[in-house]
This record gives sequence, structure tokens and C-alpha cells, in this order.
Amino acid sequence: MVTKKNQYLITSALYSHAARKFSARFEVLEAGAGKSFSDILKEIILKEKIKILGIENDNLKVTEYDRISKNVKQTKHFDLSSLRILKDTDEINLIGKACEIGDKAYSQVLKKIRIGMTEKEIALELEWIIRQTGAELSFKPIVAFGPNAAVPHHQTGNDKLQKNQCVLIDFGVKYDNYCSDMTRTFFFGKATYSQKKVYDTVLESQQKAIEYIENQLENNKKPISTNVDAIARKFVTDAGYPPFNHSSHGIGLEVHELPHISSSNDPLENGMVFSIEPGIYLPDQMGVRIEDLFAIQDDKLIPLTHSPKELIEI
Amino acid sequence: MVTKKNQYLITSALYSHAARKFSARFEVLEAGAGKSFSDILKEIILKEKIKILGIENDNLKVTEYDRISKNVKQTKHFDLSSLRILKDTDEINLIGKACEIGDKAYSQVLKKIRIGMTEKEIALELEWIIRQTGAELSFKPIVAFGPNAAVPHHQTGNDKLQKNQCVLIDFGVKYDNYCSDMTRTFFFGKATYSQKKVYDTVLESQQKAIEYIENQLENNKKPISTNVDAIARKFVTDAGYPPFNHSSHGIGLEVHELPHISSSNDPLENGMVFSIEPGIYLPDQMGVRIEDLFAIQDDKLIPLTHSPKELIEI
Repeated sequence: MVTKKNQYLITSALYSHAARKFSARFEVLEAGAGKSFSDILKEIILKEKIKILGIENDNLKVTEYDRISKNVKQTKHFDLSSLRILKDTDEINLIGKACEIGDKAYSQVLKKIRIGMTEKEIALELEWIIRQTGAELSFKPIVAFGPNAAVPHHQTGNDKLQKNQCVLIDFGVKYDNYCSDMTRTFFFGKATYSQKKVYDTVLESQQKAIEYIENQLENNKKPISTNVDAIARKFVTDAGYPPFNHSSHGIGLEVHELPHISSSNDPLENGMVFSIEPGIYLPDQMGVRIEDLFAIQDDKLIPLTHSPKELIEI
Repeated sequence: MVTKKNQYLITSALYSHAARKFSARFEVLEAGAGKSFSDILKEIILKEKIKILGIENDNLKVTEYDRISKNVKQTKHFDLSSLRILKDTDEINLIGKACEIGDKAYSQVLKKIRIGMTEKEIALELEWIIRQTGAELSFKPIVAFGPNAAVPHHQTGNDKLQKNQCVLIDFGVKYDNYCSDMTRTFFFGKATYSQKKVYDTVLESQQKAIEYIENQLENNKKPISTNVDAIARKFVTDAGYPPFNHSSHGIGLEVHELPHISSSNDPLENGMVFSIEPGIYLPDQMGVRIEDLFAIQDDKLIPLTHSPKELIEI
């Protein structure tokens, strides 16, 4: 709980030791059998004469909300998560560091890929490389071979890698609580002419979205969130491919957080960090997605992921 | 959504492919830009003339609840998670299988423990052993050396294992979505006389709780939840040690679910699966916790975890 004057961390006795150790700038208060979480909230509210208590709608379960709101009549629904929409430089640097670890892990895993490996084995290899650096995964990696890549959120399984299949890898690193997210698609063996065309179209559609943002910023205009995916999607459908059904998204402490990109007319502003991730999915054949993270800083679009994007055949 | 006649799974287009593949007995409905999740709910409610829509308070965020309740006036708060309090035989067998994988992993990791290993290294080794079987962790393992074991939920860190330290390992396996949970404490080197006394007291306190349940069941009486920890805790404090501040708990699809053990006067019944986990924590010195899972079936208390509990010195 953050007030104008103080910041409190209310936790069970089980976690108060860790809370004091890792959150030195917070006053740690223990909730337990004697005094419940909402009892403590109420005391602070009375003591500091708080008029409105905002909550994070997106991070509170209904059970927890019921317990608080029964006891604390000042409770109001606020989407406090919007406070996180703008990142400061330290935060952007941490996301950048997560991206850097991801870039290195991706280049290492590429060297380990062999015929007959399963999707799960590649995912585990990638996880192992990341965790050996001391970082964590920000989500369970998606590894999809050939036709499996046509399912945008394929459930990584036990299929074995065959010659001349596309390989889609979507993964993220969590470094000091901040998340990265990146997707690359490459070909194990040779890509056919039509597969190369799919790849190039996705890459170019991402480039169109990037250029839109850059042009707006250069002309002192604010890029509009909803245009980012729309421009990429139009490029894909204009080339005769089906539209992708997923969206670019903000990222930070969580893999998906504000800003909303697909459905919002809000402008993209300095301090925002988000993905741009077009894709083409051809059912029962193949799929290609290319996803990178970007920050806007000093009215410039700064790429945070740097893994190569030219078509790779290994 | 489960009605008297049908079961529906409403999901985004991103996941409908996986949903159809893994949930064949459900009708999969796609929510998206055209038709929202709550639009679909409303259609089903009108079509099937549903009068009350229960929700899982514990698994729904306030944001999601707001979206539903705005559109669907039949919404009522129900703690549907209580439906899971009684497990059928198949479910208990799956939890038993998770426990069996855990027992094997524990015996394997014991053989790998060497002086100078960090807590994190042991945790990762354990994770690796479990995941190579195809199972997953049910939560991030706790590994605590010496004085760190005095913190019941110690944050596994980079301390190195020294001679004559106690080692507390609390971990769980997830097998086919069902969770196990077990804690063992052993000594790396020799335990002193007073450390052995601590260990024996914890073990005996767990045995007292087990005997209480067994005696009640034998006498056709229902064991009362709150007595389980109370009996173990009293044994610990009668022996002159501080009371432990954590509780035994139900387990199933989630590591912590109903029945509540510590604070409930409800009876323990056939079909319930829960932990019994007393501990003694001596700040800055050491800690011992012994945790096992049990099911009640046919009016008998069935242990699901089987790792040895006599004091181990390695």
C-alpha cells in the first residue's frame, strides 16, 4: 500500500522475513490470525486519513477483493496497472538487459539444433541456457515445427524435427523482475520459394509498422496504438495471406501489460515499451512470426531485441 | 461453463486449437473482437435458461469479474472451488503418481549432494530430475541450509553447503495437472544431540496428528480439520519449542486448495487429500519440517508420499 507519505508491505508471517530482506524501503506489517490483512489496511486508512483506496483490478482475485471491500468502505476500483504504462530509464534498461540475455540464448540454442530433437527438448535447452545466467523465463517457451507453427500459440510437444521444416521459437527472459519477449522463425534445411515469400512478407510487414511509428515521431506526431498492428495486418492481407489474430502488447513487470496496442486509439508515448509481432499462419503447412520489443525514448523508437532477422537456413 | 446438459470452454482464437485438442468433451467457443467472452456467456444463459451463474472467486480477477457481471445479471459469487474438495479415485491416483515421481526424484537428488553446492543448484538439480520424467514442478522448490531452514519459506539462494548443516527441501511435482507436495529435512554430516531431539520431536508431532485421524476413523468418528495441526503444534510447544506458524492444507489441481486444515471445524472426509506438516524453527540456528500427503479413502488414512522419515545423515 502506497500513500503520499509512506509505503507499506502487508504480508503473512511466512513471508515477512523475505519481505524485510528484499523490500528495505517498505514498512513490513505482518497479517495473521490476530490481525487480518484488511484489519491492517483499515488501521492505515484511519491513521493517514485516506479517502480512496485504489486496487489493481488485474492483480486481485474476487475473493481477496470481497475480503477487503467488506471491511474497508473506501475501496474503489481503479486500474492502477495503468500507473505502469510509462517506464523510467532504469526500467527500460532492465527490460533491455532481459532482451540481451534472450538474444544471446537464442544464438546459443541455434547452434544446438539437430535433426530428430523434439520441440520440448529445444524449449528445455533454451530454458537451461537462460537459467544458467541466473535469469528466469518470463513465460513457457513456444517451440513449433512445420505445420505446428501454423497455430499461433502452439502447445510445445514431442514432435521430432525433420529436414526442411520451419521452426518458430517464441520465448522471454525475466531479469530482475522485468520481462522480455521475442519470436524468431528459421528454416531447418532449405526454405522453398513460397516459404521465403511468406517470411519476407512478415518481415516487411513488421518493417512497415516500425516505419509508421518512426515517421510519426520524426514529424512530432504521436503514433496511434491501433495503427501499429493494423498497418502490419493490412500489408499481410494485401499480399494475399490470411490476417493474423494476435496483437502486439505492452510489456514490463508482466509479459502482457499496458499499453494495449491492437484495440486502443491511445497514442504511444515516451516511456512505453511494447512488442511488434506480425505473423502469417497457413493451416497444416507452416507459420512465421517475427516479434521484437521496442521502447520510445526521447521521441525515438529504440529496438531492445537485436537477434538477426534475415532468413536463416541451418 | 458447466450446465446441467452441456460443458463449454470459451477461449480466445489463439487457444481454440489447443482447447479442441485437449478438451474433447467440451464444446469450444471462440471469443474475439466480434463476440466477447461475456457475450457468449449471455447467449448460453439465455439459450439454456440459466438462473444463476456461479464463479470461482479464487480464480477470477476483479477485472474479469467486472466484465462478466456488467453484462450478465445472473452472476453470483459462489466459492465453486469447494466443488473440488472431494476427489474421486482417478484424481487421488494422479496425486499419488505425482507423489511417486517426487519420492524417486528425492532419492536421486540425495545422491548428488556435495559440499559447496548452492541451494539454487540443488533446487535446479531436483527440477531437472523431475522434468526429465515429463512431469513439471507444482511450485518452485525451497532448499534451505542450516540457519536458512529456520525461515519456513526461505528464498532459495546462493549459500554454499557446509559440513554438519541441516538441509530442508520442500518441493512438489505436477503430473497430469495434479500436484504433490513434500518436505524432508536431513543432515549433511552429523547432527548434534540437540538437533536430533528437534528432528525427533517434529517427526513424533506428525505421528501424533496421524494417529488422531486414524483413531477417529477407526472409531467411526470424523476427524476435525483444526485438530490436526493443533495436536502437532501442542506436541511441539509441550516439548519446549516455539509453535510453527504455517498450516497443513488441501491439495489437488492447486498446491493449496480446500479443505482448510488449520482454521476450520469441518470434518475430514473420504475423498479429501491434504498435507500434514509440522515444523520447528530455531532462528539463526536451524529448522526442521516434515511434510507428507494423505488421502482419506474408505474411512482409512492413506499415505501418498513414501520417502523415508528416519533421520538421515549423509
